[in-house]
Amino acid sequence: MNPEQFRLRERLRVRWAETDMQGIVFNGHYLTYFDVAITEYWRAIGMPYPAALAGTGADLFAVKSTAEYLAPARYDDVIEVGCRAARLGRSSIGFELAIWRDGEPITKGEVVYACADPVARRAVPIPAPLRAAIEAFERRSPG
Amino acid sequence: MNPEQFRLRERLRVRWAETDMQGIVFNGHYLTYFDVAITEYWRAIGMPYPAALAGTGADLFAVKSTAEYLAPARYDDVIEVGCRAARLGRSSIGFELAIWRDGEPITKGEVVYACADPVARRAVPIPAPLRAAIEAFERRSPG
Amino acid sequence: MNPEQFRLRERLRVRWAETDMQGIVFNGHYLTYFDVAITEYWRAIGMPYPAALAGTGADLFAVKSTAEYLAPARYDDVIEVGCRAARLGRSSIGFELAIWRDGEPITKGEVVYACADPVARRAVPIPAPLRAAIEAFERRSPG
Amino acid sequence: MNPEQFRLRERLRVRWAETDMQGIVFNGHYLTYFDVAITEYWRAIGMPYPAALAGTGADLFAVKSTAEYLAPARYDDVIEVGCRAARLGRSSIGFELAIWRDGEPITKGEVVYACADPVARRAVPIPAPLRAAIEAFERRSPG
Repeated sequence: MNPEQFRLRERLRVRWAETDMQGIVFNGHYLTYFDVAITEYWRAIGMPYPAALAGTGADLFAVKSTAEYLAPARYDDVIEVGCRAARLGRSSIGFELAIWRDGEPITKGEVVYACADPVARRAVPIPAPLRAAIEAFERRSPG
Repeated sequence: MNPEQFRLRERLRVRWAETDMQGIVFNGHYLTYFDVAITEYWRAIGMPYPAALAGTGADLFAVKSTAEYLAPARYDDVIEVGCRAARLGRSSIGFELAIWRDGEPITKGEVVYACADPVARRAVPIPAPLRAAIEAFERRSPG
Repeated sequence: MNPEQFRLRERLRVRWAETDMQGIVFNGHYLTYFDVAITEYWRAIGMPYPAALAGTGADLFAVKSTAEYLAPARYDDVIEVGCRAARLGRSSIGFELAIWRDGEPITKGEVVYACADPVARRAVPIPAPLRAAIEAFERRSPG
Repeated sequence: MNPEQFRLRERLRVRWAETDMQGIVFNGHYLTYFDVAITEYWRAIGMPYPAALAGTGADLFAVKSTAEYLAPARYDDVIEVGCRAARLGRSSIGFELAIWRDGEPITKGEVVYACADPVARRAVPIPAPLRAAIEAFERRSPG
């Protein structure tokens, strides 16, 4: 949960529509925040989704998500969402995610994707260029 | 805004995630409620979307929406959403929508769809079977 | 993941607005489905939220969620969401959730709530009537 | 729909979760985009919502929204949302909104708010400092 462990950090501002009657962000919306950071991750490694997968016969499907809510995000908060590919399997990618506000961690979680042939609906290996881009990005030290 | 004017009325319950810090439903979510009723409208007339348009070369695209918020919907409210095809053009359908709670109108609005070729991106006539189904449904008196 | 293990099962239909470009429900929306079932759980045990907590000085805050996506839900699918209080701590409630389509499990997960004083922002015991209602509901065999 | 008519223009990027099966943004989400711009409007005029209304006994409630969808926004598009207070009544504010992509207008609309006492649920005049801030902001030429 150290921000420096995440090369990719995306800032965003909590929207009114994301808060609920408790005055805090509804728990499901943190997965949208995670997803926004994952979008930026693909762009940061030079593999914008879904264009970078076009023609590979492979697509990515979320198979698991977890989120731990350490403190609530509130309306108009500026938060920072970090994303890194913490685990890279033959046909799966495990992203570790974290959210900070004013440098304090407020959420952490993971989203695991399976790489699959969307027609045949079976697992396929992560395309080599995508794997190489992830490895190159994570190998370098952040900052 | 008389419920009897709407043959199609769909009941739903307001979700926690749809409320905001004011304790009322965020204004954008009423368009989702409208959309839920429109889904049921297609089913009710025997033209479930999108299956009923498959192979016609036509698809429907929202071109305009309006909503008037007469009274707020709140968490856990059971509301009824009415939908009727109030205007039927050559290549457009204008739905009139209304929401009631305990018989009292709380929202009214409209959603206008254009019928278009999604590839060529130009207007096309509403497919004849769809038009016939709408006309047959609206011609009959409700109830 | 046996439906019969869940006394509370809530049916709902996937909305158009919940699908994404892959034609499947966006992963974050399953937490909304979980939340809909939890709302019905409180009602089913005779403790509708938030009314049942009014005056107790306690409120419930999500502290963790997990979801495993076994198969995607699609537009217009009728799904069934099961919810049961699988773990009951001094000041926390762990709900187990599952989603089925045509009897086949497509999602499973958990949502853990902490019972806390929203002003002092510290854990407090689950109010006795709420605990008793949960225990009574889960003790009885389903069906 | 000339961008220069709007002093307040907010950029944002379309999220994956905001697209639907047609590969375009679901119509209801444009109201969220409008709302994001309105949030920034309050900030820009020095009257951040809801803090600036605290203690006035007044709150703002959406009473009407319209949106015209000229062209669809798509995943990952960077769009610009303009907002200006086009009409200022005794107890209502009419915002005009517009969205551009690459300088081309894709959406236009309005959101009308009523200023009301949330307890008594009746219209009250717009607080004088809020009115003055809006007038001062709109009086100046943009840019």
